[in-house]
Amino acid sequence: MTTIDLNSDLGESFGNYTFGDDAAVLESVSSANVACGFHAGDPRGIRITCRAAVASGTTIGAHPGYHDLAGFGRRFIDMDPGELTDEVIYQIGALQAIARSAGGEVRYVKPHGGLYNTIAVHEGQARAVVRAMTELAPELPLMVLPGSVVERVAREAGLRTVAEAFADRAYVADGTLVKRGTSGAILDPDAAVAQAVRFATEGRVRAIDGTELEIAPDSICLHGDNPAAIELARRIRAGLEAAGVRIESFA
Amino acid sequence: MTTIDLNSDLGESFGNYTFGDDAAVLESVSSANVACGFHAGDPRGIRITCRAAVASGTTIGAHPGYHDLAGFGRRFIDMDPGELTDEVIYQIGALQAIARSAGGEVRYVKPHGGLYNTIAVHEGQARAVVRAMTELAPELPLMVLPGSVVERVAREAGLRTVAEAFADRAYVADGTLVKRGTSGAILDPDAAVAQAVRFATEGRVRAIDGTELEIAPDSICLHGDNPAAIELARRIRAGLEAAGVRIESFA
Amino acid sequence: MTTIDLNSDLGESFGNYTFGDDAAVLESVSSANVACGFHAGDPRGIRITCRAAVASGTTIGAHPGYHDLAGFGRRFIDMDPGELTDEVIYQIGALQAIARSAGGEVRYVKPHGGLYNTIAVHEGQARAVVRAMTELAPELPLMVLPGSVVERVAREAGLRTVAEAFADRAYVADGTLVKRGTSGAILDPDAAVAQAVRFATEGRVRAIDGTELEIAPDSICLHGDNPAAIELARRIRAGLEAAGVRIESFA
Amino acid sequence: MTTIDLNSDLGESFGNYTFGDDAAVLESVSSANVACGFHAGDPRGIRITCRAAVASGTTIGAHPGYHDLAGFGRRFIDMDPGELTDEVIYQIGALQAIARSAGGEVRYVKPHGGLYNTIAVHEGQARAVVRAMTELAPELPLMVLPGSVVERVAREAGLRTVAEAFADRAYVADGTLVKRGTSGAILDPDAAVAQAVRFATEGRVRAIDGTELEIAPDSICLHGDNPAAIELARRIRAGLEAAGVRIESFA
Repeated sequence: MTTIDLNSDLGESFGNYTFGDDAAVLESVSSANVACGFHAGDPRGIRITCRAAVASGTTIGAHPGYHDLAGFGRRFIDMDPGELTDEVIYQIGALQAIARSAGGEVRYVKPHGGLYNTIAVHEGQARAVVRAMTELAPELPLMVLPGSVVERVAREAGLRTVAEAFADRAYVADGTLVKRGTSGAILDPDAAVAQAVRFATEGRVRAIDGTELEIAPDSICLHGDNPAAIELARRIRAGLEAAGVRIESFA
Repeated sequence: MTTIDLNSDLGESFGNYTFGDDAAVLESVSSANVACGFHAGDPRGIRITCRAAVASGTTIGAHPGYHDLAGFGRRFIDMDPGELTDEVIYQIGALQAIARSAGGEVRYVKPHGGLYNTIAVHEGQARAVVRAMTELAPELPLMVLPGSVVERVAREAGLRTVAEAFADRAYVADGTLVKRGTSGAILDPDAAVAQAVRFATEGRVRAIDGTELEIAPDSICLHGDNPAAIELARRIRAGLEAAGVRIESFA
Repeated sequence: MTTIDLNSDLGESFGNYTFGDDAAVLESVSSANVACGFHAGDPRGIRITCRAAVASGTTIGAHPGYHDLAGFGRRFIDMDPGELTDEVIYQIGALQAIARSAGGEVRYVKPHGGLYNTIAVHEGQARAVVRAMTELAPELPLMVLPGSVVERVAREAGLRTVAEAFADRAYVADGTLVKRGTSGAILDPDAAVAQAVRFATEGRVRAIDGTELEIAPDSICLHGDNPAAIELARRIRAGLEAAGVRIESFA
Repeated sequence: MTTIDLNSDLGESFGNYTFGDDAAVLESVSSANVACGFHAGDPRGIRITCRAAVASGTTIGAHPGYHDLAGFGRRFIDMDPGELTDEVIYQIGALQAIARSAGGEVRYVKPHGGLYNTIAVHEGQARAVVRAMTELAPELPLMVLPGSVVERVAREAGLRTVAEAFADRAYVADGTLVKRGTSGAILDPDAAVAQAVRFATEGRVRAIDGTELEIAPDSICLHGDNPAAIELARRIRAGLEAAGVRIESFA
């Protein structure tokens, strides 16, 4: 039976501020990218999220990001790579402890937001993230954008990589995503469900210019920061199951 | 042969700011209370400190504190105990990862500054710190002020406690410390060396009113945040060794 | 014609986190307590709030708090009074610049949350806040709880004080509020509207034990952090207007 | 009589961390770039620095930077220009209040570190900083690198600019600085004194390839973050005075 993982960002509330609806998203995903307190999340909130993930049988991943709460980790910061390595180690370790105290374990790592985008193209920061993993937890898989710099660097370093695709984003013929803000960049819900099903069952996607691309992801990224996103997550899961795909973590 | 541990706070630099002289202090102590990034310390600096501790054979302890860099963790914060538990778990976990990536291990926990002082008397926060340890690392000893609330709470919870004494601080007849700022609160270097030797060899100290107290600490706290403190640390170690005491971690 | 001011906390969003519905609250109040970036708020968000306040003719007040985003400024911090004075000056100044750049002016000061509660009883911190105002802006009124320590200290220092009352909170016979969590502490909407009208038209309130108290506030505090609070704010304003009271800033 | 301004960064201590020797530097400079709490500085420390500047007759300038204490404001952050404008307004306003409460006034603005370097070449962020000044304080001069993007943008917006030069840095023939780390980038003390004197008396500097450049700065930047820098600052001031140059603020 075909299986695929569905992942989403969770644990991003902070103090008095609520962000996203973790409980609702956990009904759809098999993997939870849990914030580590740098781009978002605080110890209390991420522990609650870890407990909920354990209770729902969802795999926990560490979601380290830039130390930039004001920017939600979405802004590029021109960090020293050595400092970045240490910050990623720190974040993974903090989440390992929180997860363990909640009865779970960190089973993979997915960098967040601006850091994710940067290491897709920036070799110095990509190497910094990979070094953090080889020095702390070489047994954990790293979730990456297929074809990215970090995918190559991670494999060279002997890490297992897990390929991620996006259900609701249009692809360029070179395998990258059509930029947000560009016409056609975001698929409508029906198209997103269909794209997810093709990823899982055929390992293919049609690019915005009609080119057929072979992309067979291990995981599809869903969102949970607004009601429409949560509804789409539900539909994608239902669509996959209706197509005979089992939703299951890669870890 | 009589043995005693000497501990000091390390890893408290932050970004561009240097604090203390970790390399010099490591020559005198057997245990390093390493900052965890909340009251002080950043991932880069605490990793450098952990590497230096490993290189010098010094035992690494986690030194969690209030999340208050501006106050250096010295100000009481009226935190929710549940949040405090989670913050302590987060900090210990972060340091465990940093220590591990530096070739070491966290072998004990000593709360920092304002938190240390608070849990000596504040049952709610004392229970919160103890809960963090029982939920994450019940095998680690907790360094405490003898006679404090947290010592009692930790023992009730089945944690091993390690008693700490202060070489350069005068004691009240009830076993507490004479408050800083009070006349006679801080001993001169000769008296501090002598007090350290009596702690180690006799398990006794003379209180400020002349009362003889039985206090047999597992560890003596030294300081390293200025040249005089570092010199005193050297003298205390030399004085203990001259008295036939071996300096050795309790862990 | 009888007039009264209605105030509420605004500008408390931060980065990617939204808090409250400033636009909705601005329809009900005459004074906006705008966060200054320490307990909540960031420069972008508080500027947007100041522009909206200017557009709606709402008076802008500075709402300084403890520097504790994680705790939303609600936790007591045992600060050095001198440092507190300087932090309050810094916050008021920052908001003065933001307000000015939005076409407005800061016309009063109301301390936030934990700081507000602390200076009602803690003389050292009350003096620190008052000193900030006498040193920076002695012409601005300070909004206070009637009968509080800070009210006395402020008057002794020559500051104008503005008395605040709470529409939806029950009062004890000594003029303090019934503690949250106690039975009867929070009034239902009808009772809250009635209490607001009595404050404005009679300068009286009936305490929880039936005692009649003479409290004639200059301003009544409303909330906007959830839909029910916003609806209550609308009803209180409507109730006051129906009773012939004009809603108008004291400044 | 020829006059020139000497400026240095001050007020960069934070909490328990001391940075630089403000008292020593104030003996040499005529203008103090005072940190505003984002890249460094806290309300207490910057107020102490403002008082010292007032006492020594030194002109106070605002020194806004990226909100990045961990990076000391030295790392490029890819900020939204609108948010940058608001952050600069916030910082200038905070310092205006602190300066005023210390008996002084903010008389110019010099962006700090990474922001200074960025706006020399990055038009979006340069416009953001200029907009902050036109919206808050169009009467204040902005200190800039001659030939930089921000100099042009500021002039187009009608701001007065003040040109800054560096005594101890070698120049490229195009008027930019030889990069740190390059051979010959940092002048020895004698050469730095001589370069400062030529800037002030001739409005010229010899580039590293021997080209004579016409650069007539309004201000020369000195450093105070280590004893050698402070000694060099003293020598530069003495050298200028010996050459008949009066040290005086441009403001």
